[in-house]
Amino acid sequence: MELIYKKLLSNELDSLESNLLESISSDIELASEVSNYLVSSGGKRIRPVICILIAKTFNYSGEELIKLASSIELLHSATLIHDDVVDQSQIRRGKESIHNKWDNAHGVLVGDFVYSKAFQLMASFDNSRIIKTLADSTNKISEGEVLQLSLKNKDILSEEDYFEIINRKTAELFKCAAVTAGILSSCDKDQINGLARFSSSLGISFQIQDDILDYFGKEELTGKKVGKDFEEGKFTLPVLIALKKMSDEKKKGFLDIFTSGKKENFSNILEILNDQNTLLDIQETFNSYSNICKEELNKMPDNQYKDALYDIVINLDSRLT
Amino acid sequence: MELIYKKLLSNELDSLESNLLESISSDIELASEVSNYLVSSGGKRIRPVICILIAKTFNYSGEELIKLASSIELLHSATLIHDDVVDQSQIRRGKESIHNKWDNAHGVLVGDFVYSKAFQLMASFDNSRIIKTLADSTNKISEGEVLQLSLKNKDILSEEDYFEIINRKTAELFKCAAVTAGILSSCDKDQINGLARFSSSLGISFQIQDDILDYFGKEELTGKKVGKDFEEGKFTLPVLIALKKMSDEKKKGFLDIFTSGKKENFSNILEILNDQNTLLDIQETFNSYSNICKEELNKMPDNQYKDALYDIVINLDSRLT
Repeated sequence: MELIYKKLLSNELDSLESNLLESISSDIELASEVSNYLVSSGGKRIRPVICILIAKTFNYSGEELIKLASSIELLHSATLIHDDVVDQSQIRRGKESIHNKWDNAHGVLVGDFVYSKAFQLMASFDNSRIIKTLADSTNKISEGEVLQLSLKNKDILSEEDYFEIINRKTAELFKCAAVTAGILSSCDKDQINGLARFSSSLGISFQIQDDILDYFGKEELTGKKVGKDFEEGKFTLPVLIALKKMSDEKKKGFLDIFTSGKKENFSNILEILNDQNTLLDIQETFNSYSNICKEELNKMPDNQYKDALYDIVINLDSRLT
Repeated sequence: MELIYKKLLSNELDSLESNLLESISSDIELASEVSNYLVSSGGKRIRPVICILIAKTFNYSGEELIKLASSIELLHSATLIHDDVVDQSQIRRGKESIHNKWDNAHGVLVGDFVYSKAFQLMASFDNSRIIKTLADSTNKISEGEVLQLSLKNKDILSEEDYFEIINRKTAELFKCAAVTAGILSSCDKDQINGLARFSSSLGISFQIQDDILDYFGKEELTGKKVGKDFEEGKFTLPVLIALKKMSDEKKKGFLDIFTSGKKENFSNILEILNDQNTLLDIQETFNSYSNICKEELNKMPDNQYKDALYDIVINLDSRLT
């Protein structure tokens, strides 16, 4: 079933794609070529979609929306390019990652190029509050990356650190997309606070869903392989929740298997997660964020754009069951 | 002999150092620690010095100058960190480079963190022309990096490409430092154009001087080892000028030795450069830029800050003879 926003925003999404390509055009051919390779590889565009839907929910009708949505998607694209260099990931959106197809130098420098294009778009706003919000988010996201790096060699990640990381690495840009859309639409302080709460919770729900699907997803439905987080030894919510309920002895055994990262142990880990009823517990956490989204949506003006936001939230729910 | 600006700006340079450290402070300890390691490793601060001297030459007395100078130095620092990852350079400012002391991931992510701090500083200006100028320069510098990368595997670099690269990689941020200082000081259009011409030429002079010293410098005077560009197979002006005067046959022999990059061939290359009177030719090029600097300085208001700028230009000259 197709999500409502796809039809509703079909014009805006076309404009977004053109604006993205136009924004990364450059006299330096290699810069356009490599950044194009990622930007046109068909991401979900969920952050710009949130940005556009929020502004339209609050009746914005000016000229600056697509530019704002583009700057947010470019910021996201730049972080993906650098993430792939850092993690030495081979695949991104079903294609070879940039550092893999070219090399690390291309990943680092073209990532910087895409950042710089995002900053040029940001700098073109006449509204200094929008520029500051975008710059502050860029900083928070970047700090999240460094935080994650600093915790990489720990034996185990605390749930607190997990949430701090996903707050910064995922929820922050969702929040930025919604809040800047709110500023653009002249929302008042209470509305902006509501938008921040809605979009942070949506970002966290998204990340939790991603983490769940990495263990319990069906490849034929999601198109994504399971077990990637396990293979990378990444502590995500399913593992952290399962660990909480184990005795010290059981925990030790689990961690031994987990840190091995061996592919053949995945089914073993999955079995333990199932034994612990992890999915039920994690759904409870997921629901608490999903409910905040619905609560905040109920306060927003009623119109088809809000309905489309509601549809996104509901759809996240349904993919888990 | 100490340069005039060091005494003249001693208060401003102290404020600059404090502001830089304050700007890169962060809740995320690792981010502060690693960025501090580079930022406090005593660079020349030539870009912020130009920025401060220009603003003071034009009688600026507001509160925003140190913040502007800091944002420019942070932008420069971020490019250095990423440059070192890309070139896999081992040493920076006499210390291990970040990616060498930590690893590539630290270099990429802490570089991004320093960029984000520079952008936060930029975003805090109320003047949108300053923000746009800074963002445009960031983009031009980044394109210069990608251009250099795209020309890396060419048999030989053209003089045109050489100047395009140093225009973007070096002169652009000098120009940005002077032009934004001019905007801050309410300079008129002609003055801004003069500042752009002065600072671009100063940036190019700086780079040419660097390139000359890498072949003809005396380590006991400069504190820098000679032959680094040769070892990295980097085409710089001394080599490009020498090549221009060679017969095709001689050129081929020279390139064979040059592309070998073997340390023991350095004296051989140096001998050929000397035979071709390269230093005389390159000084001519250098002088043409240095003269533009003096020409533009002559149009600026007379005061001790302008004298200090003149002193920087003269000092560059004298280091070459």
